[in-house]
Amino acid sequence: MNAGNTAIHAPDLFGLRTPALILDLDVLENNLRVMQERADALGVRLRPHVKTHKCVEIAELQRSRGTSGITVSTLAEARVFAEAGFADILWAFPLNLSRIDEAAALSRRVELGVTVDSLTAVEALEAAGTAFSVWLEIDCGYGRSGVPYDSGRVVEIARQISRAGRLALGGCLTHAGHTYGADSPAAVAALAEEERRAMVEVARALRAAELEPGVLSLGSTPGMSRVETLEGIDEVRPGNYALHDYTQTRLGSCAVGDCAVTVLATVVSAREGVGGAIADCGALALSKDPGPDDPPHYGRLFGSPEGGHLGDDRVTSVSQEHGHLSGRYRVGEKVRVLPNHACLTVAHFDHFEVARGHRVVDRWKIRRIRD
Amino acid sequence: MNAGNTAIHAPDLFGLRTPALILDLDVLENNLRVMQERADALGVRLRPHVKTHKCVEIAELQRSRGTSGITVSTLAEARVFAEAGFADILWAFPLNLSRIDEAAALSRRVELGVTVDSLTAVEALEAAGTAFSVWLEIDCGYGRSGVPYDSGRVVEIARQISRAGRLALGGCLTHAGHTYGADSPAAVAALAEEERRAMVEVARALRAAELEPGVLSLGSTPGMSRVETLEGIDEVRPGNYALHDYTQTRLGSCAVGDCAVTVLATVVSAREGVGGAIADCGALALSKDPGPDDPPHYGRLFGSPEGGHLGDDRVTSVSQEHGHLSGRYRVGEKVRVLPNHACLTVAHFDHFEVARGHRVVDRWKIRRIRD
Repeated sequence: MNAGNTAIHAPDLFGLRTPALILDLDVLENNLRVMQERADALGVRLRPHVKTHKCVEIAELQRSRGTSGITVSTLAEARVFAEAGFADILWAFPLNLSRIDEAAALSRRVELGVTVDSLTAVEALEAAGTAFSVWLEIDCGYGRSGVPYDSGRVVEIARQISRAGRLALGGCLTHAGHTYGADSPAAVAALAEEERRAMVEVARALRAAELEPGVLSLGSTPGMSRVETLEGIDEVRPGNYALHDYTQTRLGSCAVGDCAVTVLATVVSAREGVGGAIADCGALALSKDPGPDDPPHYGRLFGSPEGGHLGDDRVTSVSQEHGHLSGRYRVGEKVRVLPNHACLTVAHFDHFEVARGHRVVDRWKIRRIRD
Repeated sequence: MNAGNTAIHAPDLFGLRTPALILDLDVLENNLRVMQERADALGVRLRPHVKTHKCVEIAELQRSRGTSGITVSTLAEARVFAEAGFADILWAFPLNLSRIDEAAALSRRVELGVTVDSLTAVEALEAAGTAFSVWLEIDCGYGRSGVPYDSGRVVEIARQISRAGRLALGGCLTHAGHTYGADSPAAVAALAEEERRAMVEVARALRAAELEPGVLSLGSTPGMSRVETLEGIDEVRPGNYALHDYTQTRLGSCAVGDCAVTVLATVVSAREGVGGAIADCGALALSKDPGPDDPPHYGRLFGSPEGGHLGDDRVTSVSQEHGHLSGRYRVGEKVRVLPNHACLTVAHFDHFEVARGHRVVDRWKIRRIRD
């Protein structure tokens, strides 16, 4: 795991050049342990979504703690992780017909699940003439992609898959992304239970039509933090839980101390007499995700760069490289920002600076390829 | 320029795997010509900001048409372009004290301008013991970084630079970023004129204090589209003009036909009976820039994928890889999206797919390094 050590340019966190994406290894390890224990207690396999971290080292830590396969959002991610030795990969994004040839090539090397929610996609897979493990996406109420769980199209599409000689129904998956809009932990728990029941209903409908549903897969990080039973479900696919972020703290999924990534930035302009300060944590560090607060901001500052607790200050606006901080700071001062949305923040960096406390112990590559 | 040709995997635009970032070469070339002619007519040098495209090939096209140096927003960008043969680089971001050693190393290889707006930064540069070309950032009213143009600190900081043996005042720069908030072309023109007058006032104050201001540099793409005179100014630094985007069309800086980059996406879920569709143009393709419209959206769809005119549909919401389209589409259908903010969209891709009309003629690397 220490192969990247030569790239460490400062043994102490506060000696790093900024902006830097700090990964707190103790916090990460705790998050991985907690979710694995939760999945074990609920009697389901854990297939983490690696779009959150896009990092082979983190996926290896997840695997070493007991996960079962991984989830990806793009074929580029799938290829990176396949090359790194992950052989059970679910591409949990509706099939992009412009990439069937690539999916076919990867399906010959690893166990790749491809996702569909239409007859059109099934027919395109049939026409490709390759064996595919096909997963049917279900909409449990989020309203993004997927076949509504109570629609007759669930059976219709599953039947089409089962009739195609080279296709096999690998499973049914859903994602209750509307847990992110819930206004209380109780509301999250209710949506997570609806997600479970929707999938149980899907399985019942398929079996009534003499179709085998395969793996029943669901999950979001907020839902996994609150769900009380996963009876009838086989696996879960949270992603954000490995890192957590400010949005998760507001949803009640975790505490501030469970957030594993922060952006270390340097104050570059103190705006004497004008108010606020500018640091090198703009839209290409934090992302423009406006987060859960009103008025919106782009991240919360820690009360001190050592971390531990949030202060009152926020990144109130961002341009490409400039982040505007509320509060008074000195030029050259280091600040640490808790991002609203870890997944998007990570996707703006090439590396995690991996730390235990203040000590930088490694540098891990973020595979943010868009190919 | 055709060295990347081997990577072209489809000669026709609509055969490309998606999401793909399409660069219309005819439009780009026209944009470069128009701005160069405008700078020439206004009697100023053009030092384009390459943070917009992060692409050596585009910077080479700009140079071949008469630009004079480049502007960058990070040292990583500066290094990439220095290695590609650009020898006159202005780092137009307030000096990050954690990167002085890197700036010193690069200053020994190329003409690098570093930017300051505080005595603290000047003192840190003095202490580094290297020769630096130091540019003083002026706030002409935008209220981001920079010394207010009418503050006594302009002379104070310039004098500190001039007294330091190894430092030279390379110039004074400002950016009227508040042109992006203007509500009419007349308001843009008024702000651009204020920007010019602020810099003329800065030069007058410095000369009255027997200090030589060096190069007087300003500019934004909206301002450059409207400013009537740049008397007293030496150079301009617009960046977005090379590509333009939906925001610029709304500001009146350009027409839809002047926008050189679009995202080609594939509909992956048709949401039968629910309304709208999902395509592979989420936050990691378009960015989460909400753009200028109310209600906000993440991009406007062309009326047909061939381009030319905008239709009524929008990308109404984005998650990491999902873009939610208004309107009805078929699974597998290709759509073209005009992004709100070209700079942030470009920063999510590894390549431009370079096209003339529908023909893909090259693939240019986007140097989105964060190091």
